[in-house]
Amino acid sequence: MATNLGKALHHAQHEVVQVYSRTEASAKALASVLNCDYTTDVARVAMHADMFVIAVKDAALPSLAQVLMQGREQQLLVHTAGSMPMDVLPTERRGVFYPMQTFSKDKKVDFSVIPCFIEASNEEDRLLLFKMGKTISDTLYELDSENRKYLHLAAVFCCNFANHCFDLGAQLLKLHGNLPFSVMLPLISETANKLNMMPPRQAQTGPAVRWDRNVIEKQRMLLSDMPDLQRIYELLSQSIHNHSMSQ
Amino acid sequence: MATNLGKALHHAQHEVVQVYSRTEASAKALASVLNCDYTTDVARVAMHADMFVIAVKDAALPSLAQVLMQGREQQLLVHTAGSMPMDVLPTERRGVFYPMQTFSKDKKVDFSVIPCFIEASNEEDRLLLFKMGKTISDTLYELDSENRKYLHLAAVFCCNFANHCFDLGAQLLKLHGNLPFSVMLPLISETANKLNMMPPRQAQTGPAVRWDRNVIEKQRMLLSDMPDLQRIYELLSQSIHNHSMSQ
Repeated sequence: MATNLGKALHHAQHEVVQVYSRTEASAKALASVLNCDYTTDVARVAMHADMFVIAVKDAALPSLAQVLMQGREQQLLVHTAGSMPMDVLPTERRGVFYPMQTFSKDKKVDFSVIPCFIEASNEEDRLLLFKMGKTISDTLYELDSENRKYLHLAAVFCCNFANHCFDLGAQLLKLHGNLPFSVMLPLISETANKLNMMPPRQAQTGPAVRWDRNVIEKQRMLLSDMPDLQRIYELLSQSIHNHSMSQ
Repeated sequence: MATNLGKALHHAQHEVVQVYSRTEASAKALASVLNCDYTTDVARVAMHADMFVIAVKDAALPSLAQVLMQGREQQLLVHTAGSMPMDVLPTERRGVFYPMQTFSKDKKVDFSVIPCFIEASNEEDRLLLFKMGKTISDTLYELDSENRKYLHLAAVFCCNFANHCFDLGAQLLKLHGNLPFSVMLPLISETANKLNMMPPRQAQTGPAVRWDRNVIEKQRMLLSDMPDLQRIYELLSQSIHNHSMSQ
């Protein structure tokens, strides 16, 4: 997140004043890309900036914010975490800038298509975050902490859980027939692309939505020696059926 | 399936002799696109053709094949079902042509990118199916019935189950924050596109693979009033964690 957001800000001609990270290697690597100063000592973090963006894992956020706040009581602190409320920041001027995307170090992303969700403790900082956001993303929304929690949860289903379904499919392919996972890519791509035409409820296909008990039972039995996959198969098939009934 | 395969064959200059369907409306609609004869009376189905392709739902396949076989004992019968063995066809000359894709009536597909899986009871018909397949798809594999069952099951995970995860995400968005589902499309698209760069195991992100128990527990609690989603959340999070451990 820090890497991708930093690059996007730098690319949009914002001045990144300084990078702080606990490890020298990552601080140095990012600072060199952003052409700026870096430190691994929180006591040497700059005292003034238009905003201090904290992009760390959720568990590290509260304590880091507490430390950073010292001497910066009048500064704007911003975090980037989908699942954390704005109030985890102890300053009076605080905000959230949550770019909803899946980041992997090895894969470059086009930041402009990433929807970003903004929250701020006062109107001036809200405008500042929107102004900054507009320079790096085409899609900005204002969203409060309570609704952002659910947005992040929805993203877990749409990204993390969907990807795990791909992984379970890959596992089955590996064990049977010796086919490369690439055979699945057109299907996966079409499954994603369909959503530009219709909502997922309408796009649902397969034995579970048809409630073809014969196929479902046969597929369930194919997973007899993989009880974890079998349980997931049962639960998701039942859920697809229940949702199609309540349509 | 019948519509998409029929169109692809027609487009590749194959002569579709006749369309049979139980309902007049669908038989007529497809025949008009393919510029051919149609019937709703199985007794009036043509007696000779290079192949008879049966594209019906799995449950209807065995009985229809049994009826069609009468008087066509020397003809080549082919089905298109991923989860059905070739032996469900009672003729001596039999085969399978399984295009692995998700078809919806309202969404046109590019057949050439669809991987198709071929099986045949004799060498000559195997070559015939490959020759036909080459004219409509760029990716053909030979695959026997046993492995095809697992391929189809893998497709259920990669397509049907992944799409259901999208649907559950859509449901959460609808209930909280009043955001359009379109905000999820860049994330979903990137989740699918990443697989061109790395396998799904490596592409996995989110609280479950980090095993961030704090976030997981908070998200679990957000689903307290939706026990079905909560159970799915628990099971998939645990499974992601287990798989990341066995990496």
